[in-house]
Amino acid sequence: MTRIITLGEIMLRLSTSSGVRLEQSGRFAAHYGGGEANVAISLANYGHDVSFASKVPANDLGKAVTHHLRNYGVDCSLLLSGGPRLGTYYMESGVGERAAKVIYDRAGSSFAEIKTNEWSEAIFKDVALFHVSGITPALSETWRDLTLSLVKRAKKAGCKISFDINYRGKLWTTNEAAAFLKEILPLVDYCSAGKLDAQVFMEIPAYTGQGNELLYYYQQMNQRYPNIELFYSTKREVLSASANTLMGTLWNNGQYAASQEHRIDPIVDRVGGGDAFCAGVLHGILSGYSSQETIDLATAASALKHTIHGDCNQFTEAEVAEFLAAGSGKIIR
Amino acid sequence: MTRIITLGEIMLRLSTSSGVRLEQSGRFAAHYGGGEANVAISLANYGHDVSFASKVPANDLGKAVTHHLRNYGVDCSLLLSGGPRLGTYYMESGVGERAAKVIYDRAGSSFAEIKTNEWSEAIFKDVALFHVSGITPALSETWRDLTLSLVKRAKKAGCKISFDINYRGKLWTTNEAAAFLKEILPLVDYCSAGKLDAQVFMEIPAYTGQGNELLYYYQQMNQRYPNIELFYSTKREVLSASANTLMGTLWNNGQYAASQEHRIDPIVDRVGGGDAFCAGVLHGILSGYSSQETIDLATAASALKHTIHGDCNQFTEAEVAEFLAAGSGKIIR
Amino acid sequence: MTRIITLGEIMLRLSTSSGVRLEQSGRFAAHYGGGEANVAISLANYGHDVSFASKVPANDLGKAVTHHLRNYGVDCSLLLSGGPRLGTYYMESGVGERAAKVIYDRAGSSFAEIKTNEWSEAIFKDVALFHVSGITPALSETWRDLTLSLVKRAKKAGCKISFDINYRGKLWTTNEAAAFLKEILPLVDYCSAGKLDAQVFMEIPAYTGQGNELLYYYQQMNQRYPNIELFYSTKREVLSASANTLMGTLWNNGQYAASQEHRIDPIVDRVGGGDAFCAGVLHGILSGYSSQETIDLATAASALKHTIHGDCNQFTEAEVAEFLAAGSGKIIR
Amino acid sequence: MTRIITLGEIMLRLSTSSGVRLEQSGRFAAHYGGGEANVAISLANYGHDVSFASKVPANDLGKAVTHHLRNYGVDCSLLLSGGPRLGTYYMESGVGERAAKVIYDRAGSSFAEIKTNEWSEAIFKDVALFHVSGITPALSETWRDLTLSLVKRAKKAGCKISFDINYRGKLWTTNEAAAFLKEILPLVDYCSAGKLDAQVFMEIPAYTGQGNELLYYYQQMNQRYPNIELFYSTKREVLSASANTLMGTLWNNGQYAASQEHRIDPIVDRVGGGDAFCAGVLHGILSGYSSQETIDLATAASALKHTIHGDCNQFTEAEVAEFLAAGSGKIIR
Amino acid sequence: MTRIITLGEIMLRLSTSSGVRLEQSGRFAAHYGGGEANVAISLANYGHDVSFASKVPANDLGKAVTHHLRNYGVDCSLLLSGGPRLGTYYMESGVGERAAKVIYDRAGSSFAEIKTNEWSEAIFKDVALFHVSGITPALSETWRDLTLSLVKRAKKAGCKISFDINYRGKLWTTNEAAAFLKEILPLVDYCSAGKLDAQVFMEIPAYTGQGNELLYYYQQMNQRYPNIELFYSTKREVLSASANTLMGTLWNNGQYAASQEHRIDPIVDRVGGGDAFCAGVLHGILSGYSSQETIDLATAASALKHTIHGDCNQFTEAEVAEFLAAGSGKIIR
Amino acid sequence: MTRIITLGEIMLRLSTSSGVRLEQSGRFAAHYGGGEANVAISLANYGHDVSFASKVPANDLGKAVTHHLRNYGVDCSLLLSGGPRLGTYYMESGVGERAAKVIYDRAGSSFAEIKTNEWSEAIFKDVALFHVSGITPALSETWRDLTLSLVKRAKKAGCKISFDINYRGKLWTTNEAAAFLKEILPLVDYCSAGKLDAQVFMEIPAYTGQGNELLYYYQQMNQRYPNIELFYSTKREVLSASANTLMGTLWNNGQYAASQEHRIDPIVDRVGGGDAFCAGVLHGILSGYSSQETIDLATAASALKHTIHGDCNQFTEAEVAEFLAAGSGKIIR
Repeated sequence: MTRIITLGEIMLRLSTSSGVRLEQSGRFAAHYGGGEANVAISLANYGHDVSFASKVPANDLGKAVTHHLRNYGVDCSLLLSGGPRLGTYYMESGVGERAAKVIYDRAGSSFAEIKTNEWSEAIFKDVALFHVSGITPALSETWRDLTLSLVKRAKKAGCKISFDINYRGKLWTTNEAAAFLKEILPLVDYCSAGKLDAQVFMEIPAYTGQGNELLYYYQQMNQRYPNIELFYSTKREVLSASANTLMGTLWNNGQYAASQEHRIDPIVDRVGGGDAFCAGVLHGILSGYSSQETIDLATAASALKHTIHGDCNQFTEAEVAEFLAAGSGKIIR
Repeated sequence: MTRIITLGEIMLRLSTSSGVRLEQSGRFAAHYGGGEANVAISLANYGHDVSFASKVPANDLGKAVTHHLRNYGVDCSLLLSGGPRLGTYYMESGVGERAAKVIYDRAGSSFAEIKTNEWSEAIFKDVALFHVSGITPALSETWRDLTLSLVKRAKKAGCKISFDINYRGKLWTTNEAAAFLKEILPLVDYCSAGKLDAQVFMEIPAYTGQGNELLYYYQQMNQRYPNIELFYSTKREVLSASANTLMGTLWNNGQYAASQEHRIDPIVDRVGGGDAFCAGVLHGILSGYSSQETIDLATAASALKHTIHGDCNQFTEAEVAEFLAAGSGKIIR
Repeated sequence: MTRIITLGEIMLRLSTSSGVRLEQSGRFAAHYGGGEANVAISLANYGHDVSFASKVPANDLGKAVTHHLRNYGVDCSLLLSGGPRLGTYYMESGVGERAAKVIYDRAGSSFAEIKTNEWSEAIFKDVALFHVSGITPALSETWRDLTLSLVKRAKKAGCKISFDINYRGKLWTTNEAAAFLKEILPLVDYCSAGKLDAQVFMEIPAYTGQGNELLYYYQQMNQRYPNIELFYSTKREVLSASANTLMGTLWNNGQYAASQEHRIDPIVDRVGGGDAFCAGVLHGILSGYSSQETIDLATAASALKHTIHGDCNQFTEAEVAEFLAAGSGKIIR
Repeated sequence: MTRIITLGEIMLRLSTSSGVRLEQSGRFAAHYGGGEANVAISLANYGHDVSFASKVPANDLGKAVTHHLRNYGVDCSLLLSGGPRLGTYYMESGVGERAAKVIYDRAGSSFAEIKTNEWSEAIFKDVALFHVSGITPALSETWRDLTLSLVKRAKKAGCKISFDINYRGKLWTTNEAAAFLKEILPLVDYCSAGKLDAQVFMEIPAYTGQGNELLYYYQQMNQRYPNIELFYSTKREVLSASANTLMGTLWNNGQYAASQEHRIDPIVDRVGGGDAFCAGVLHGILSGYSSQETIDLATAASALKHTIHGDCNQFTEAEVAEFLAAGSGKIIR
Repeated sequence: MTRIITLGEIMLRLSTSSGVRLEQSGRFAAHYGGGEANVAISLANYGHDVSFASKVPANDLGKAVTHHLRNYGVDCSLLLSGGPRLGTYYMESGVGERAAKVIYDRAGSSFAEIKTNEWSEAIFKDVALFHVSGITPALSETWRDLTLSLVKRAKKAGCKISFDINYRGKLWTTNEAAAFLKEILPLVDYCSAGKLDAQVFMEIPAYTGQGNELLYYYQQMNQRYPNIELFYSTKREVLSASANTLMGTLWNNGQYAASQEHRIDPIVDRVGGGDAFCAGVLHGILSGYSSQETIDLATAASALKHTIHGDCNQFTEAEVAEFLAAGSGKIIR
Repeated sequence: MTRIITLGEIMLRLSTSSGVRLEQSGRFAAHYGGGEANVAISLANYGHDVSFASKVPANDLGKAVTHHLRNYGVDCSLLLSGGPRLGTYYMESGVGERAAKVIYDRAGSSFAEIKTNEWSEAIFKDVALFHVSGITPALSETWRDLTLSLVKRAKKAGCKISFDINYRGKLWTTNEAAAFLKEILPLVDYCSAGKLDAQVFMEIPAYTGQGNELLYYYQQMNQRYPNIELFYSTKREVLSASANTLMGTLWNNGQYAASQEHRIDPIVDRVGGGDAFCAGVLHGILSGYSSQETIDLATAASALKHTIHGDCNQFTEAEVAEFLAAGSGKIIR
């Protein structure tokens, strides 16, 4: 059992049921989630000792976050309590040709309003992995500084650094992101980054060859940042809001691996699919699995996530393995 | 903002949830709708000043109709109150190979029982468009007379006349319909009519050529009724109760246009799909859009309607446009 | 039909179902409401021509507010669109001894952030009544100024001014409120104010006699503010979160009237009960009803509101009258 | 096991959930019921061999009625299939001071439209009891004749005749009812009739003594109709729509008995409470129970019915007995 | 109307709603079913006089089973009451690639604990068909003996014997099953058995030809057991938990027939699909339909079953025929 | 933060919604609970470090138990995995005069089938309190031995022993219980026991005086077992299944204290009310609160539990205190 810390914002998602418009909906389903919290839960499901570091208000919504995380065995001792509010967002579920629609109401949240590091020096002691994403530094300039200083402190304490670029255009510009990435990527060990990240943030020229396009981008990114030993990303084809195909790839110290293509139809809830993938890759790496085993597990975990309501992957490693073994849709009696 | 009147019956639909048989269902979802009411709501969503003329009982179900229409901004000053009852129908939702099943209980409704014109002379003043459908004259001989006299009065007041043939075999025979259509079509400006209407009600010989079959029928219909400047219809392929393809076409003063083919999968609720199409075409015409813009918008609006529970299209023009631009199923974050 | 404007904030209420804690709830019922919006809806139900003036964000939650208001026939032409967000609050429903619990998340709303008057000069033309409450000036100093200037403008245009003190300790101090009230009360015609308001904000000494305590406070308040011709308030005994008694009183140009005591058991939803009362009083006054008729209707309307989910009173005048006539709980077959 | 036939109309009830207005409700609960059908089900629950004679349309709603009756073991061989429609009614559930509200939509039903006797001569063979109510003859003059002729035929075949006066002012006038009752009551053996029935339909002068008022009315009714050996009724005090008290009384061949007073709080569903009482009395009589045992069981069964959704009493005799023995609200572990 | 007896266990199924994991589910849908009970219901829907023989506990769950069966017109006079408990199982609904998952909790049930024949000698009198499956003898050695002796008794009384092999690996080994089958198959007239049954239990060598594989297996099985005049089975392709194809085949006294291939997408509930097929075949045989008519009806009935929640086929013969005639997904207005 | 262990069985409760009979219910709410698990959760809510020792099957229902306990912060390291099944029971919710009804299906559970101690020697190290109840030794003779040996081991390790007699007549006879109690009570420090326990299991003669009856029983019990320093119990008056009064009393080293009487109306869910009381008392004792403070908190916590669905008390100490301070039903805005 490995000690892991993930850090980020967790929000309340309020979503409509399928076929009902947000503006006419008399009820919302409530789910709690956020990229790094979702990764924490997946890793806890896989048997790791995971703490989620964040900040939530000292009210019932903050308590709800605690209940949600503890339910899945995530340690909440680094979950700070206080500040003005919990970030929320509203989601009108998509179906068929009609895509989901999101309204954010996240400004001024307890996490976003953090101004100085509120965690003790000692938190990274005996921690094997520290995972953050690009959403956190996107929240404010303060958070850019805080993210960097926390990563540096983790690095110093001997943690491996995992970073998911996860660019969100509503939160910062590509220029702001690129500037920040230049500072943090030299500190990173494992990085979730794909073709667009390579082109936009690392100025890697577009691939023009006939070969394996992703391999090219992974190699180029590794040339830019030789410290990063692992790159990974998914290739998703959006057939409709109800049907997607999904394939995962990774590049691990020069070794490239790709999963089978999963056809996800129907999609129950797409939110958190990327986080399930990320957690699967990290689990494979932490467990010393082969690149192929790792990418198979991670992509299968992500496909499974799409079949469940809520942001987090609720499957154990044994369940993911059983899913991979059984093939599509066979009943397990 | 154009003043529009639509006239017709509005009913209560009681439907089961998916996978439950009507004869075993302990609950029903309640929706209010009818072709002309649905058109009224769509046109109100697009910014027009729309009145819906009908009659509902002076009880809570009549009030429910008013709430429903006002919710979407439709004016109810022409919605009469009185008479015996609200027409109802029961729908067992279809799924996959199993089609939806409908039980009508509409006889003797407040609208069907109207015996003489109950609206004032002045209602068509400053009205640009009057929309009716073939369901209304199918209700009774009285309603055939009333429909004709209302259309004539509207015409006299300067309204454009929109007519949706919408033949329902449970309400009248093809002979009865054909006889009525011969009287009303010479008064019509915009007509929703397709291949079957052309063959059955206008005695147009079946197309035997290799070219554009619909164009042939539209041209032939226009030869019969040169007063009708606009014909339009959809071509739907029923793959199953859960998946259809849909394409719209129109013929506008000699100009033919066809939309892309939409694949609607899964279908949330098919009821009202044709009305959403009709309203989209009328909006395009009223707004002076090109034939191509018009048919694209109308067909997209109809496809969107299929993704929502309830009879009426709940999307604004901006939302339809965004849907057309985004492509299938991409999340709008 | 009298033209009326009410102005105030409208919020989204997210509430749990009975017997479920907020921190463990996986779904929320969504209701839209606010004191002045609720009054607007009640008055529209009673047949008045009511506009609700407020500001909501230009997103689906803003549209939901529009749908809600239009459903009940409230005009939305003074409902501005824009600004950062819709104020929200969470409510854990109470039951028996356990009271409801509220978490506000209303800071920074589109309405609260209004900095200058955004309505045209002409809005009060032909308006008989302008209704505001003490919640609006409590939002900010800006809103104190705006409230005063709007009231003055309305007064100048010939409107009667209705003001509901509705003190909320979470929004401002009693000192701040008292200072504001000294400025606005001299402009008011109809005022919802009770014993505590009299004591705290008008420095009226506590009653020590044996007679009608409320009559004393109404008379004293009228001495302070002879311009106010109508005072009214309810006396509520909280037996539990599920059972209350409620009695209404008013003082109208020297005439005192009290309703019967209603026993409300069980309470379905208490939110908006005061607004239903206020609207009932205003309707009685606008309709020239006697003081007794007015207070009977207003208190009955408030009692009825408690039996319905959602913030607004959904009953017409005829329904309230029927309720008063029928007595408690007899079926109307 | 005694053979019993009950005859009457069965309808679909569409009701709102508590705290939701009919005119704003997006869903209805569906229950099937009618006085004589409810009595049939209760008697089947008590172990009798009961047939329900009625007519329902040959569609899914007719099938739903069959499923409902068979579920409880009622024989459907006398349930005719055909005719125009199933009678329906809408119910807005009451709560507290606000009473339930009913909208009937029963005109023209398959049962009401029956014009001549559609059952074979042989149906009353070996039948011990034939039960009808005053609702059936209220439907039409045809049904008055039919009811009389069926009762006469049953009487001739040796059945005991049970009749529940059950006057409904919406269906016929008191004069019409009185005229009919004069014809049928001389044929009746067991009669559900109370104080108001005695006064209004049998011209019995109001009681002015100090003694047992109900005993007086029962005795007077028996003097008018010495053929009727059993009279029974309930005394209900409506504290609110959510709380009633209920006491049952009967007069059996000169013997008077009264039950304890039940306090029913909260009421889950009041519909069918009288039918549960009636069936309990008939079961006691058919089983040779003492008057006291009979009235205790019948009133307890009625009280239990109020705690269950749906029109019919779902309790066996053993369960009613256990309820009587346990006292109020003690858990049966 | 033919008299039929089916015998087997009936269980309570507790299932999650789609997209919710069993381990996180706060509610379960309750369905009652079992292979032979499902066959009984289908045959009753088709108009036969069917008794279901089984044993359920003398508690509310036992009563629920009775309600369920009676609802569909199945006679319960052979349904014994007593014993320790009702077998239950939990089902996590599958969706897309994720298969359904089942947890059995059936040990020690009232049916499984039967030790000696508890039915009277006379039950098979005038019975045309006795149907059992391989699940019953799999429950215990006692049940193997009981099954054989009941089948022998039925055979002696002149019943046709229908047997569905339905091998369940969780209940017994293939060796145990094979040994039992050698004893029972010589008594059987109609047998549901496919390719795997032929290979595993009848030691028929795998087909190596290019022709009709199923015909080969049916012929070979008939050579082993010439007493069996009818073999039938379905060929199901599991595309995913949400989409399957299904084709039925049968071999009737040398005559082979195959249905069209149905594409079932989406699947609402797969449980009981095989039982609906089996009942359809038996109905065709009992009705003297041609092999083609029989297999078309049976496969269509099975496809329909997949579109409905619950274990049992809820369709009449007329509805299945209408479904076959209408084609996929066309609305029946 | 005190280390506490509670040990006992935890079961799945499947309950109907209010007003629906178990035998007609198509869905069940699922709650996990058991006396000692409920106590564990309450104590964890109060800030203690609590482990729940039990055994659940290695399937999804076992995982569900883990999720439930972790949600509330209870440590699951002593929760063993394995064995045949999770005990279940079905509850038909009571309402008004109709009591709840329970059907147990708990035989053969993983916990009941434990044959030898499966926990390590070290578990009681540094543990301040070990809590068990009379339900566990009632399960089997093996469990009587195991309970005694675990209590002795705990005692030896320095734990205080808490014991809740909680006699269940369905599990063992009063003689069996009395025999066991004679063995365990000499080891107990804190004991939940009331008047009936005193009379039945400790042969204390019935009180005949005029004074404080409970004080008498507590004193007498203490004379029998001077080692027990704390006795406590509740006095509940069952007005109906929907309304109870509740008062708590305790006797602590000679000091008697009683709470106010709570009127609980309506009752949302009574299950676990006693466990909430027990945990409140233990928390008061562990925190060194006065007897009055302790009994007030414990009884208030129990009253609060009745207002929430599910077996466990979900309130923190601060929330219970706020509830005590606020009085009945006042909203906390």
